[in-house]
Amino acid sequence: MGLTARNPNEEGEELEGEQALPGAPEVAVPVTAIDHIAIAVADLDATLDLYRNVFGLTVSTREVLHDDGIEVAVVRVGEVGIQFVAPVDDDADVATFLAEWGPGLHHIGLKVSDAAEALEVLAREGYEVVDEEPRNGLAGTKVAFVNPHDLDGTIIQVVET
Amino acid sequence: MGLTARNPNEEGEELEGEQALPGAPEVAVPVTAIDHIAIAVADLDATLDLYRNVFGLTVSTREVLHDDGIEVAVVRVGEVGIQFVAPVDDDADVATFLAEWGPGLHHIGLKVSDAAEALEVLAREGYEVVDEEPRNGLAGTKVAFVNPHDLDGTIIQVVET
Repeated sequence: MGLTARNPNEEGEELEGEQALPGAPEVAVPVTAIDHIAIAVADLDATLDLYRNVFGLTVSTREVLHDDGIEVAVVRVGEVGIQFVAPVDDDADVATFLAEWGPGLHHIGLKVSDAAEALEVLAREGYEVVDEEPRNGLAGTKVAFVNPHDLDGTIIQVVET
Repeated sequence: MGLTARNPNEEGEELEGEQALPGAPEVAVPVTAIDHIAIAVADLDATLDLYRNVFGLTVSTREVLHDDGIEVAVVRVGEVGIQFVAPVDDDADVATFLAEWGPGLHHIGLKVSDAAEALEVLAREGYEVVDEEPRNGLAGTKVAFVNPHDLDGTIIQVVET
């Protein structure tokens, strides 16, 4: 699965920059930053009250993404956002997640320079992408999910800002 | 439970920006930053290879915490660390987590100014703290967990650096 099938003859094609060592493998989808951490919750208002009262974390933006059937509230902490995500439709993916796993950490959003290109590279390298093409995320971002089974269990969202 | 017992008459007293107005509800444990995101994994080397090859994320520090029965590798992305945590003892908490939930996102580490004081305040406010007193974390930090049931399902670790 994944990069293990890559042609070893390509090993010599290096990236320029910090990661590149002579003979180092090419990075499939270079990540430039953590965009956000997403937490699935059932009752958005109750959770936001809790995090404000306990930790002093207050919401900067709040948006319903109708295509995904979710409402998202973002708390910014330094350069990273914590996104609290609640379903507004019963058939939203996050509703399924809540039913199966309960509330809690859902995914990490990693910034990439080009989400469509990231999907193309990941698919070519043998990783299963959940989204065939990027969908609309918060605040005009382009986002897409990679299958967590290919990333040792963690749901990763690539985010183009 | 917790701060839900706050006097509803105080609800009208809003925060203005970052500053609390006189009489505003006091934040129990002000968070100053996200210290890290922790991911539970079974095979640390395999996961590190994966994240390096796919996303170009490379390890800055790696440490065995014998008291916790874990090995932790840290990838720094901007001001936040991603901690990959694998059990080295079968009875480590993270081994139990892996058996129950499988690999994936485990907790968020939130920076606080004083971990011992944070535990004291949380306990006084009615939150269940997993650790009676801070334990030794990575790189000389003091850390402690709060019961996720009191924080809407998310495992939060307070971190004093």
